[in-house]
Amino acid sequence: MTEAVARPGRGRRPSAEVRRDVLAAATELLLADGVAAVTFERVAQAAPASKVTLYKWWPTPGALAAEAYFAHVESGLRFDDSGDLTADLRAQLHAFVATLTDERIGPVIAGFIGAAQADAALAEAWSAGYSLERRRLAVERFARAEEAGQLRTGLDLEVLVDQLWGACYHRLLVRDQPLTPAFADAILDNLLRGVATAP
Amino acid sequence: MTEAVARPGRGRRPSAEVRRDVLAAATELLLADGVAAVTFERVAQAAPASKVTLYKWWPTPGALAAEAYFAHVESGLRFDDSGDLTADLRAQLHAFVATLTDERIGPVIAGFIGAAQADAALAEAWSAGYSLERRRLAVERFARAEEAGQLRTGLDLEVLVDQLWGACYHRLLVRDQPLTPAFADAILDNLLRGVATAP
Repeated sequence: MTEAVARPGRGRRPSAEVRRDVLAAATELLLADGVAAVTFERVAQAAPASKVTLYKWWPTPGALAAEAYFAHVESGLRFDDSGDLTADLRAQLHAFVATLTDERIGPVIAGFIGAAQADAALAEAWSAGYSLERRRLAVERFARAEEAGQLRTGLDLEVLVDQLWGACYHRLLVRDQPLTPAFADAILDNLLRGVATAP
Repeated sequence: MTEAVARPGRGRRPSAEVRRDVLAAATELLLADGVAAVTFERVAQAAPASKVTLYKWWPTPGALAAEAYFAHVESGLRFDDSGDLTADLRAQLHAFVATLTDERIGPVIAGFIGAAQADAALAEAWSAGYSLERRRLAVERFARAEEAGQLRTGLDLEVLVDQLWGACYHRLLVRDQPLTPAFADAILDNLLRGVATAP
């Protein structure tokens, strides 16, 4: 039996179909006007869907916006493994900096992390749907490099994530210094080679 | 001639005195209930001061909250120079992690950076009153280490700030992994020594 959802004026439809329309409507609002534009009111009107359905499926509009965003960027989660750690990380970090500095996407990401500080459901959605998966893919790549003898043994591989992607997020969220391809190259070189002369 | 400000029922007082009372009232609200609790309405009532004065002095309640916070934590900006770069950075990063994980202060800092994503005046106040000064003190310390031959030459010293303090902010704002003294030690060791076996 297929679960169905009532929609004003259009009868009952399969819930998967309604869900897809809701996420598409939320994505459109998000990319056009940012996280704050994604309200249950506006999404329900645009989808269209009933507001009761949205309240049932998502704890906050922020959590709905986050899920819409993940569906939109899912393919960007890929992480290449050519065997050359430096080249793979450089490619990934350049693509990441390009995403953060894209004038449509960058403010959306900053808006999500910003709003998540006052919206626990959004913070949870961001971790579960996006950041934990990115961490896992990066740490997996580091673990293969460690096995191949390219990284020192005994490192906490999670920490490398904060010193590469975390450093980029810092420049996105506190805009004191520019986020550029040269910055991506510098963080990678610093972390791989070290910055001290006599450690 | 001293500038004076009218306060309901208490006549005119020197503006520096009113300003001090307003900042004290804002700090109290901030530490008790977070950034969102600092509204012009509540601060005006608590100080007491006229709301017109607050609108004149600060562009947004967030900017007022930020200035109150900086006055409160000013002494924590200190950055020691014992000549031992590793020891000085370790002490600074341990103190920083302790501040970020303090259950009264941590949420306030996360709240500021979060709210700044949707409040340009707050973002500006945070940079001008806090983060740029912290950057400057750190870069100065790195420059002395570079002169002393303890760091490789040709580094962009600003980048080191993002890979140390920025990495800590990342764990504060996206809470996927714990922010601990061991994390502070790991980021420092990784950055100074490097993580690759054959750079």
